[in-house]
Amino acid sequence: MTESELMHIRIDGDRLWDSLMQMARCGATDRGGCNRQALTDEDKEGRDLFRRWCEEAGCAVTVDAIGNMFARRTGEDNALPPVLVGSHLDTQPTGGKFDGAYGVLAGLEVIRTLNDNGIRTQGPVEVATWTNEEGCRFNPALIGSGVWSGVFDLEETYAIPDKSGKTMVAELRRIGYLGDVPAKARPLRAAFEAHIEQGPILEQEGHQIGVLTGIQGLRWYDLVIEGEACHAGPTPMSSRKDPFMAALPILQGCYDLAGRHAPWGRATFGDIRAEPGARNTVPEKLVVSIDLRHPDAGVLDEMDRALRDLVSRECKSRGLDSSLEELWHMPVTTFAPECVDAVRQATRELGYSHMEMVSGAGHDSLYLAAVVPTGMIFVPCENGLSHNEAENAKPEDLEAGCNVLLHAVLRIAGV
Amino acid sequence: MTESELMHIRIDGDRLWDSLMQMARCGATDRGGCNRQALTDEDKEGRDLFRRWCEEAGCAVTVDAIGNMFARRTGEDNALPPVLVGSHLDTQPTGGKFDGAYGVLAGLEVIRTLNDNGIRTQGPVEVATWTNEEGCRFNPALIGSGVWSGVFDLEETYAIPDKSGKTMVAELRRIGYLGDVPAKARPLRAAFEAHIEQGPILEQEGHQIGVLTGIQGLRWYDLVIEGEACHAGPTPMSSRKDPFMAALPILQGCYDLAGRHAPWGRATFGDIRAEPGARNTVPEKLVVSIDLRHPDAGVLDEMDRALRDLVSRECKSRGLDSSLEELWHMPVTTFAPECVDAVRQATRELGYSHMEMVSGAGHDSLYLAAVVPTGMIFVPCENGLSHNEAENAKPEDLEAGCNVLLHAVLRIAGV
Repeated sequence: MTESELMHIRIDGDRLWDSLMQMARCGATDRGGCNRQALTDEDKEGRDLFRRWCEEAGCAVTVDAIGNMFARRTGEDNALPPVLVGSHLDTQPTGGKFDGAYGVLAGLEVIRTLNDNGIRTQGPVEVATWTNEEGCRFNPALIGSGVWSGVFDLEETYAIPDKSGKTMVAELRRIGYLGDVPAKARPLRAAFEAHIEQGPILEQEGHQIGVLTGIQGLRWYDLVIEGEACHAGPTPMSSRKDPFMAALPILQGCYDLAGRHAPWGRATFGDIRAEPGARNTVPEKLVVSIDLRHPDAGVLDEMDRALRDLVSRECKSRGLDSSLEELWHMPVTTFAPECVDAVRQATRELGYSHMEMVSGAGHDSLYLAAVVPTGMIFVPCENGLSHNEAENAKPEDLEAGCNVLLHAVLRIAGV
Repeated sequence: MTESELMHIRIDGDRLWDSLMQMARCGATDRGGCNRQALTDEDKEGRDLFRRWCEEAGCAVTVDAIGNMFARRTGEDNALPPVLVGSHLDTQPTGGKFDGAYGVLAGLEVIRTLNDNGIRTQGPVEVATWTNEEGCRFNPALIGSGVWSGVFDLEETYAIPDKSGKTMVAELRRIGYLGDVPAKARPLRAAFEAHIEQGPILEQEGHQIGVLTGIQGLRWYDLVIEGEACHAGPTPMSSRKDPFMAALPILQGCYDLAGRHAPWGRATFGDIRAEPGARNTVPEKLVVSIDLRHPDAGVLDEMDRALRDLVSRECKSRGLDSSLEELWHMPVTTFAPECVDAVRQATRELGYSHMEMVSGAGHDSLYLAAVVPTGMIFVPCENGLSHNEAENAKPEDLEAGCNVLLHAVLRIAGV
């Protein structure tokens, strides 16, 4: 095959869409989304389907000790490190059809397209799906890629419980995905991940492809404010130690911080809990999750300091105890220039409208980037919505992103 | 017995204290409180103890169809309507030793004191314990007194489930307190309830007795704000529909309302829930319980209107849907002048330092007041704490309140 013939190869957009719609039936919700949380029966169903498709495409599928799956298409020289493409199949409880699944099935579509055209790459090409990317069932997020990259200890990770007390290892075993391949990094030529943007920027700017240069940094906290439970009626407002009285200005202060560092600053409170949680009792304790993000490491540090000051000031002045536990600090990530360039060049050659950008969300590529050359491709999603059952994307954009993925892989894998 | 001899009769403070401490063993918690929720095994244990003590004091104990218990000490003329004293034995999950139990055992101590002194009242005297005052196991609160007073329908009440789905009627039967006496109001000469204040006012003002003129009105709401779930990273702040962005100014507005109507205005947010409740997802829904109170019906109506305006304004301007469902409106209650006066006169004669006040909390007396002449007596509790395992009260204050109860009963019952 000549270089020019190679350049004209395209993926099959209809087949990609069909795969996405079939996968979406695993854990489908009434409102058109997916609830396919990690290591549930629905996740197993999705994994089984992915495995069958990969085997039908001639790949050998292996599973590692944390349930990450690798489907390998051999190359000319199988001693060469593979080019890996992939993402995750698990979803949020009220997730959509595209977050994660798109990156995995785009990888599968690349393999199928190589097969259709009888292309033999120099080294192998692999498609991966990483375990528990979302972090909603087992905390933290990015567990599969994190263990693989050496960020998390395997034994400690096994013991992580879901809300009902079931551990990861027990659930891996139960669904039959406790694999025997060691869950640790091995040399890769490169790793690519295609993903919906999960934000409105590409759509607003009218671009079909985002060429990613890196990932925003984030800091996750649990803010705990401890007051004193008392009866809601008889206790005068001035005598109360009510955690909400400090929480309101603290949370407003976080919004102000994000606003001061617009347009990239972010502040989110995804979960909140009052204890004992009785309607006619002032809570003795309030627990709020805080998520702060910014793509500039210096600004994110500044936001962290400002939050600490805010918590201390608002709680102390009201005689409330507080703690601000940092659960996760994801530093700002910069992708490998070689991979960014492969995506950029493929996009240009294919003639898609595009922009360079950073990811506002964490992705498995975050941890991969620390150990192997990594790059990412974004496509727009409707109204920027994600982590939502109404998540949607245009078939032509998904197709475009998958073509970029194919040609970036070809550039690096070599033919 | 002469009137002067009668005036010198006092209850036995040590015996009252011992009864309270024995009752507190039923459902005792590690932190010194009580978890004796309605119709649990612990509640049954408390009821059995109360029944035994009443029978030992020569009373006939009856149980009605909603589990309310009445211990009757006969009088000179048993055709006369009785004077009833009582409260409740159930507690919050992390409740104290005195809330409710004090009013019941003070009633028992009145009976014992009448026995010790061989006093025969004109009409009978009864001690009552009302079922499920707290409302924490079976919603709403004040069920026993509410059914008795005709506020709640008995059959509908029977079907109320706890969180595990067990119904009231099944639990009444299980613990052996599904009685055969009709659960409906009958003529009473008067009803008195002694209770710890559950607030700090008596302690702060340095008074031993609160002479109650009525009960604050309250309004309970569920505020539901619906936004749009989206990923916490990629979505710019300006594109979000985040329920917290409206909730913060609404809750702050409630505090401002309570402050504008100080010192009696109250605003409490006992419980809050974010859905789906994932750390890295902007919630699609926020549900907050709001409890507003004021002893002046006009002011409480004004607070209601202001809250509705606030919710509508803050949600509309952000494109968020909202609903403010009023779950309960407990109107302002005024006690019978005859009963208030009996408490006032008894307190003066006994020489206790006192003040007139309204109750900030709902009590069984609230519903009784609608059908029989009713009065209440408050005694201070430590730091105003209640609905808390650290709830505490001084033996001498509990004794003083019980003496007031005795002499108020004697004034109305006649000797």
